[in-house]
Amino acid sequence: MKPLPQHSPPPTLRLPLLALFFMLAWQAAWVRPTPAEEGMWTYDNFPSSAVSTTYGVDLDDAWLDRVRQATVRLDGGCTGSFVSDSGLVLTNNHCVWGCIRNLSTDERNLSDDGFIARTREDELTCPGEQISVLQEIEDVTKTVADATAGLASGDANEKRDRVLAQLADGCEESSGLECESVTLYQGGRYQLYKYKRYEDVRLVFAPEFAIAAFGGDPDNFEYPRYCLDMSMLRVYEDGQPADTPHFLTWRVDGADPGEAVFVSGHPGSTERLLTLAELLSLRQGPLPLDIELTAELRGRLSIWATTSPTAERIVAQRLPSLENSLKVQRNRLGALHNERMLSLVEEREAEERRAVREHQSLGREYESAWADVAQALEQYEGFATRHRMIAGRRGFRSAMLANALTLVDAARELKLGSADRLPRFRDAALPSIERRLGAPIPVNREFEEVMLSFSLEKLRERLGPDDPLVRRLMGTESPQQLARRATSESRMDDPEFRTKLWRDGPGAIDASDDPMLELARAIAPDIRSLTERYAEQVEAPIRAAHETIARARFELYGESRYPDATFTLRLSYGQVAGWQEGEAQVSPFTTLAALRPRITGQDPFRLPDSWKASSERIPESTRFNLVSTNDIIGGNSGSPLIDSKGLLVGLVFDGNRHSIAGRYWFDPELNRTVSVHPAIMVESMRKVYEADELLEELSLLETQP
Amino acid sequence: MKPLPQHSPPPTLRLPLLALFFMLAWQAAWVRPTPAEEGMWTYDNFPSSAVSTTYGVDLDDAWLDRVRQATVRLDGGCTGSFVSDSGLVLTNNHCVWGCIRNLSTDERNLSDDGFIARTREDELTCPGEQISVLQEIEDVTKTVADATAGLASGDANEKRDRVLAQLADGCEESSGLECESVTLYQGGRYQLYKYKRYEDVRLVFAPEFAIAAFGGDPDNFEYPRYCLDMSMLRVYEDGQPADTPHFLTWRVDGADPGEAVFVSGHPGSTERLLTLAELLSLRQGPLPLDIELTAELRGRLSIWATTSPTAERIVAQRLPSLENSLKVQRNRLGALHNERMLSLVEEREAEERRAVREHQSLGREYESAWADVAQALEQYEGFATRHRMIAGRRGFRSAMLANALTLVDAARELKLGSADRLPRFRDAALPSIERRLGAPIPVNREFEEVMLSFSLEKLRERLGPDDPLVRRLMGTESPQQLARRATSESRMDDPEFRTKLWRDGPGAIDASDDPMLELARAIAPDIRSLTERYAEQVEAPIRAAHETIARARFELYGESRYPDATFTLRLSYGQVAGWQEGEAQVSPFTTLAALRPRITGQDPFRLPDSWKASSERIPESTRFNLVSTNDIIGGNSGSPLIDSKGLLVGLVFDGNRHSIAGRYWFDPELNRTVSVHPAIMVESMRKVYEADELLEELSLLETQP
Repeated sequence: MKPLPQHSPPPTLRLPLLALFFMLAWQAAWVRPTPAEEGMWTYDNFPSSAVSTTYGVDLDDAWLDRVRQATVRLDGGCTGSFVSDSGLVLTNNHCVWGCIRNLSTDERNLSDDGFIARTREDELTCPGEQISVLQEIEDVTKTVADATAGLASGDANEKRDRVLAQLADGCEESSGLECESVTLYQGGRYQLYKYKRYEDVRLVFAPEFAIAAFGGDPDNFEYPRYCLDMSMLRVYEDGQPADTPHFLTWRVDGADPGEAVFVSGHPGSTERLLTLAELLSLRQGPLPLDIELTAELRGRLSIWATTSPTAERIVAQRLPSLENSLKVQRNRLGALHNERMLSLVEEREAEERRAVREHQSLGREYESAWADVAQALEQYEGFATRHRMIAGRRGFRSAMLANALTLVDAARELKLGSADRLPRFRDAALPSIERRLGAPIPVNREFEEVMLSFSLEKLRERLGPDDPLVRRLMGTESPQQLARRATSESRMDDPEFRTKLWRDGPGAIDASDDPMLELARAIAPDIRSLTERYAEQVEAPIRAAHETIARARFELYGESRYPDATFTLRLSYGQVAGWQEGEAQVSPFTTLAALRPRITGQDPFRLPDSWKASSERIPESTRFNLVSTNDIIGGNSGSPLIDSKGLLVGLVFDGNRHSIAGRYWFDPELNRTVSVHPAIMVESMRKVYEADELLEELSLLETQP
Repeated sequence: MKPLPQHSPPPTLRLPLLALFFMLAWQAAWVRPTPAEEGMWTYDNFPSSAVSTTYGVDLDDAWLDRVRQATVRLDGGCTGSFVSDSGLVLTNNHCVWGCIRNLSTDERNLSDDGFIARTREDELTCPGEQISVLQEIEDVTKTVADATAGLASGDANEKRDRVLAQLADGCEESSGLECESVTLYQGGRYQLYKYKRYEDVRLVFAPEFAIAAFGGDPDNFEYPRYCLDMSMLRVYEDGQPADTPHFLTWRVDGADPGEAVFVSGHPGSTERLLTLAELLSLRQGPLPLDIELTAELRGRLSIWATTSPTAERIVAQRLPSLENSLKVQRNRLGALHNERMLSLVEEREAEERRAVREHQSLGREYESAWADVAQALEQYEGFATRHRMIAGRRGFRSAMLANALTLVDAARELKLGSADRLPRFRDAALPSIERRLGAPIPVNREFEEVMLSFSLEKLRERLGPDDPLVRRLMGTESPQQLARRATSESRMDDPEFRTKLWRDGPGAIDASDDPMLELARAIAPDIRSLTERYAEQVEAPIRAAHETIARARFELYGESRYPDATFTLRLSYGQVAGWQEGEAQVSPFTTLAALRPRITGQDPFRLPDSWKASSERIPESTRFNLVSTNDIIGGNSGSPLIDSKGLLVGLVFDGNRHSIAGRYWFDPELNRTVSVHPAIMVESMRKVYEADELLEELSLLETQP
């Protein structure tokens, strides 16, 4: 494999001497809030020297290469790592909830009972699951810049998307890999990430929900914590376990307090480089809307779950996921009222604007960039609610409807040539659409009705009964009636039916009178026009302004900073350490002994039967969970926590409460990563699950704790 | 009846000449945002001359006296007006939802079917309903000021409450009326309001829910609007219809556009005189909390309602009430992000602070008052969530538990002498407690379980499973188990059982092992200690600071302003007028004709059967609802809209969406009051309900529309 290219900055971005002054001025202002641990660094710009200075630890290229190649992406939104040369992947239990649910029935409940494959033949295919491993990165910033040079923001926006799609297509042809275009530094860098993709992913091991998510929503994002939030998958190629020579080995006794530890993974999304205007707009618009919608849906599902055992099973992981989102949204809103954070951003922005003003080689467009963002946001206010409910699909929460919308959009786009279609329908993307449409993911019509009924009701509530789309969709039906009719009469739950329509093509889709397709046909034009309006009036000027700001930042500060998280591979460093919570010092480790007094016997503070029977064979002092100062965010779930030798010393599964504010800033005093300790994983595999086959594969069968 | 006393300001508050300068400076700054219509004025400070100047209308004392005496307070939180000399009260349908629910059973559904008493004997007693009519006001500002002079804020706070309670007791003894102490201008004035109270209130007429709340939650706070949100009650004395010589007569064709109209009623609560720090704290703390809790509860109840016809009936009005609260909370949060409002408050505050600084006779405590408020709020942050969940009882939403808490508190307080008890347990208050405990309000245990289970779960969620109270309450039970046990085994649903315990006294209460009483005993100490801590650390300094600011305002601006709403009697003036909504001009009246196209036949856009059968006999041009520029807020529901002759020209039942921001400021361009037009009330009584007896009592039987 090629070494990762060290991209050189485009010619216009070379660091002039003058900038050094601003850089130093900037760093003086920034140095307090940016301690060693902050940063989700790209592998091609990892600050190894800072690590060396802070921890006396030198990571060589071999370390970086091996860790990178052992880190995998669960394309649904998580991270994992190879832990054997036969495609075995360690990740969180909560990262495979979808798979567990899709494989469960009223007769076989993998969530309540857990799952372990004693032989390869017992491993169960996860429908629709996909795992990707980064192979190469290629910088295309200059190609994009050249293509959009001199264009107005709207044209540039469209051109940029097309160029990036073309580059990705070309890349796939030439490399044989899956290529994704990536925007870093809010448009300061464009790159192609090239992945090896595994589409045959099977479930190997998952403990019971009760111990994986012990403490449930009350304990979620809290610490001390006691979760065995682990699971194992295996990737297959051509029906055989994949050959994965780069994998991590375990250090069962874990790392010591104060020891340097690293997290390799795919943090989903941060917004640390947004302007102040953008941050403030978040706390007025989308967050309050989403909190209210999520809370109400949570209420509906929690009562619906009590109406039948099937309903209970169907929401068994969906409800915790929803509760997780709600906690995240709530704490984000809180973070956006944090005066300390806001004044840091204000300070940074004032500093940047001043530096830009005083910098002679930066033109006037740099000065107006911040105001351009604010103006675009103001423009957005005029149609934000419609855009969020319709184009953001908050009014259409239904898997059946989502499939129908894909088919309806496809019917329209596939009549055009590949180059003229929306990028997501270009030829290279079609196989993955077909795969998604054909995935045998079970659909429960009652659940679909609850979800669609809820979201259509919210659509009417937010847009008003006189909104033209609301009138067109509902006529004289209530949202409930419409949802019931569409979900009960549609065949969009049937993968074969969907695949047949897809293969029969646009004519067949257009001719179908499936009620969900009819609903999708009624909605699609509004989604399209709102998406276009958003792209033109909001996204285009904001992206242009962000590119400008990003160029200014490179000009002023060089590459000393890390880009916002974008669900691309990153490496963060830190140390095993607790924190000071008010009066109390929170210590970094928890133990099995400290779990015991929290057991009430009732969900979510209950041990599964397997643990009741055998957990007393595990020493009470066994470490259960731990915290470290690494800078992570959602998407890092399932990431390996690694020591300086490259050994696995934990399995990241959460952050503490303060980590949620990490979306906007990193608070070194309070922000902590929460991991499952290797000791409890190995002890439970040995004594509770008696997973000798797995332990052998992990070379842990003989090792004593 | 005595005329209302014109209270003179206490000696320290006379307006010095110097203040004139500031007053003028102030008014120059304030005059733009304070147009004629703003203000919920007390009857003893109504700006008749401004009305005369603006509308050429002179309201004499007779007008004011008659309107005041015809206005009644529904103590549950609404307003009404006498419309006959026999105790007949006109109010909103939504103001009697509690009564309707309490009188309904699975066999007799007064909400779905409506109700009309054809004879006096058919009139149905509303359990627990109470109506009060203001008779006199007495200013006690000086007495309170003298009693608290020189005391530290904590002592002053306690002393003030005691003095006000004693004054109320004395007042009741001497006047034979019900006396309530009232704090106006955030402590600038203390007054005793003396009421005649009616405890025998009966339901006379209520149209069906479907037409009373046509459009439901989607249309709530919106306009154009089509609701027959009316009902009639009758107050009885000694088993006979009360003698009510002061009543309003109807002007069936209503008022004209631009005509001066008045609203007499009991606006519940505004916060227009809060400091900026207080307003900003609202948008971070209580509002997001309440929005999330309300939304989730809404979700639970809306699914629970589908589980049985009884459940559906039980939440039939509770859900709309909850949805109403949610819309209010959501729009309040929005208002608190309104830059125009915030900058007006900021401007006002800067002006006041500057004026205070430059005013020689105002001491240094005036300068620090604003900072004192901010500091107390910061102090509050340390225990706000516990206080809100426990003392604010958000963790204990259950009627049975509320009764139990009353009994447990009583058992403690009644062992003390009257003067040493909490004011709400002083001797004079005991009869009304007994009445409430004995009210035959039906309790549904399943509903109680849903509510208590929800709120205990939120208690644990917000305080964490390791909170000492949470641990003490729940032990090894889940919130659901605790709620089920307490609601299924307790007898707190039985008014006779409650009354017997009350009469048997503290010993009997202490000895009872009713599980709800046990739960209350476990909770009560935490409620008490949090309430005390709040009183001492938050309420006391804020009240002291507010008193200071209020004194400064009187010193600077005299009586030219109105106090915040406090559910005391107010009069507002304005005119019949629509408004400009974005591009559209909203006209002031709606008609039956415009209702028709909105009918879908499904809730909440459905006519009741009675209307289907007979509404075509009502002319299509009949006016349905109207808007006016009056300044109102929740609590004004059911208020009469009155013309300059004192004739009824509408029945206030809502505000438009922008009126919700009226909690914090009055936006003259957008804020509108929504009323039922008299024409549709009379037409429907004539042609749909054929309510000849009522029409005769209203002297409307012969009148042609």
